[in-house]
Amino acid sequence: MTYSQSVLDGDRLALARLLTQVENDSAEGRAALIELFPYTGRAHLIGVTGSPGTGKSSLVNQLTLHYRKTSGKRVAVVAVDPSSPFTGGAVLGDRVRMRDLSGDPGVFIRSMATRGSLGGLAQSTANMAQVFDAAGFDIVIIETVGAGQSEVDVARLAHTTLVVEAPGLGDDIQAIKAGILEIADILVVNKADRPGVENAEKALKSMLELAHPAQRVFKHHGTYMSESVPANKVEAGLWIPPIQRTISTEGRGIVELADAIARHLTHLTQSGGWAIRERARLEVELDALIRETLVSRFRETVPQQQYEDVLERIVQRELSPWEAVKMLMQK
Amino acid sequence: MTYSQSVLDGDRLALARLLTQVENDSAEGRAALIELFPYTGRAHLIGVTGSPGTGKSSLVNQLTLHYRKTSGKRVAVVAVDPSSPFTGGAVLGDRVRMRDLSGDPGVFIRSMATRGSLGGLAQSTANMAQVFDAAGFDIVIIETVGAGQSEVDVARLAHTTLVVEAPGLGDDIQAIKAGILEIADILVVNKADRPGVENAEKALKSMLELAHPAQRVFKHHGTYMSESVPANKVEAGLWIPPIQRTISTEGRGIVELADAIARHLTHLTQSGGWAIRERARLEVELDALIRETLVSRFRETVPQQQYEDVLERIVQRELSPWEAVKMLMQK
Repeated sequence: MTYSQSVLDGDRLALARLLTQVENDSAEGRAALIELFPYTGRAHLIGVTGSPGTGKSSLVNQLTLHYRKTSGKRVAVVAVDPSSPFTGGAVLGDRVRMRDLSGDPGVFIRSMATRGSLGGLAQSTANMAQVFDAAGFDIVIIETVGAGQSEVDVARLAHTTLVVEAPGLGDDIQAIKAGILEIADILVVNKADRPGVENAEKALKSMLELAHPAQRVFKHHGTYMSESVPANKVEAGLWIPPIQRTISTEGRGIVELADAIARHLTHLTQSGGWAIRERARLEVELDALIRETLVSRFRETVPQQQYEDVLERIVQRELSPWEAVKMLMQK
Repeated sequence: MTYSQSVLDGDRLALARLLTQVENDSAEGRAALIELFPYTGRAHLIGVTGSPGTGKSSLVNQLTLHYRKTSGKRVAVVAVDPSSPFTGGAVLGDRVRMRDLSGDPGVFIRSMATRGSLGGLAQSTANMAQVFDAAGFDIVIIETVGAGQSEVDVARLAHTTLVVEAPGLGDDIQAIKAGILEIADILVVNKADRPGVENAEKALKSMLELAHPAQRVFKHHGTYMSESVPANKVEAGLWIPPIQRTISTEGRGIVELADAIARHLTHLTQSGGWAIRERARLEVELDALIRETLVSRFRETVPQQQYEDVLERIVQRELSPWEAVKMLMQK
């Protein structure tokens, strides 16, 4: 029996093995992904992202526990761990995260290393999510640690993106927030028992008002002009990201957070936003695959020695990289 | 006169304009990069990276001030700002950073937005560094905010990578550190007047000892085995990353940090590490350019309508992305 059939039949061991194949981008993994693809498109993909120190992992654990206690929904978690790009090992093992959830067949938690090239991580995460989706998990939570590109990738992959903040994380935080506000569907102020929570929330609120007015008025060459809400928010009517306080270590605010997520899902399906995000998501995936296929075909046509020679001429500054590419492509 | 000639002649306004062209990846920018390429390869590229809240920006300012006061070296700073991926605006303007350095013709500070696609940022940063290199700047400091992929990209670009930490930044920090220790040539514990500095330094030290022993002993199936230092550290003899305390807001520890950077540079040139890093850096650049050229050529051969049709079939789950790529490539 193929991996994909076993996974569709609910075989947990086959699922674990397939995830490894998919993470390693093996031929077997690829074949299974093609077979499983028709069964995808049903899971609610929830991205959880934010700066280090905000307590994302415990929040994800609590949210998973909540879904398991209050619904029959099956929950998968893909946790993208901070880890060495060179050794490829995940720092936090799977077991660390499983404490409260182990033994529950309706939960599957998978840690991933952030190894590989640019784009590779986003691609594997998307593939993992597809496997869980096909395997019948109703909710797939994708958690990333990091600030910057990884958040954006999660937002492109997820239907609902949670951006997690915590009070008092230092002076760069304000700047980070501004950047990720636009990808947030729901803002979470975790560790809300810490001093400074009011200020953090107030700052977020005023930044939100700046970032998401229905119409923003600005001055251009002395004239007042207005521009509309950013395109990624107009897509599906106007969703103003709510701010939700949580204390994940105590499980507080989790019910309200789950409610906000449910409201966002309803909003997406009623407004047509779901379809738009699905399309955007699959387009990103298609483009990544096109890029990758083109590169591997190119590598087959250029002998290694020729490539090395050209690189040496670049190192010697005899040839610029742009001229080198032209040369290599002429073949 | 072309941009590149003006830049080589030391025209500051032409330099600023060219940087914009390069950031926008315009045809003019490309042409200038090709012309300037033979003049590159001389600058010392220093990457400065670390988690939000560590005070990287003020550290970079202090380091720049120090170089200007104690040497005739010209210093350029490329600061990769956290900013919106959707609107593309940098949050911190150039002026914010210029306070102590404005008016000095031997300094040029440039903020960049972290916009664009995956890989786009690394590419523009590399191109900016090349422009500064050709323009005769002796030191080019590349500062990134973020945790994860952006650090790795900086490490690939720079000759010397500084990883900045600060005491008491939260519980995810330990995990992050483990991942980025391997890219650090010098570890900086900034905000060293904060409580917890001893612990932070101690933790870093023990992690360093784990990460960079000449020989690491481990147990495999009950047998003790040893493995050598990670490949990226063996390249040039053994450089054990020093840990340097700083209080950048007061300018303390900056002289010692600059000394450590100078020692690393000497180490690189004497051991052959410089040449190895240069080659690796240019290879990354060549590969990125190959990828990009392949994709734009592909887009020219596939009509937009055909692409849209295929995407729609993927959305409908009639076709998997892998099958779609095969179809599109057959042409």
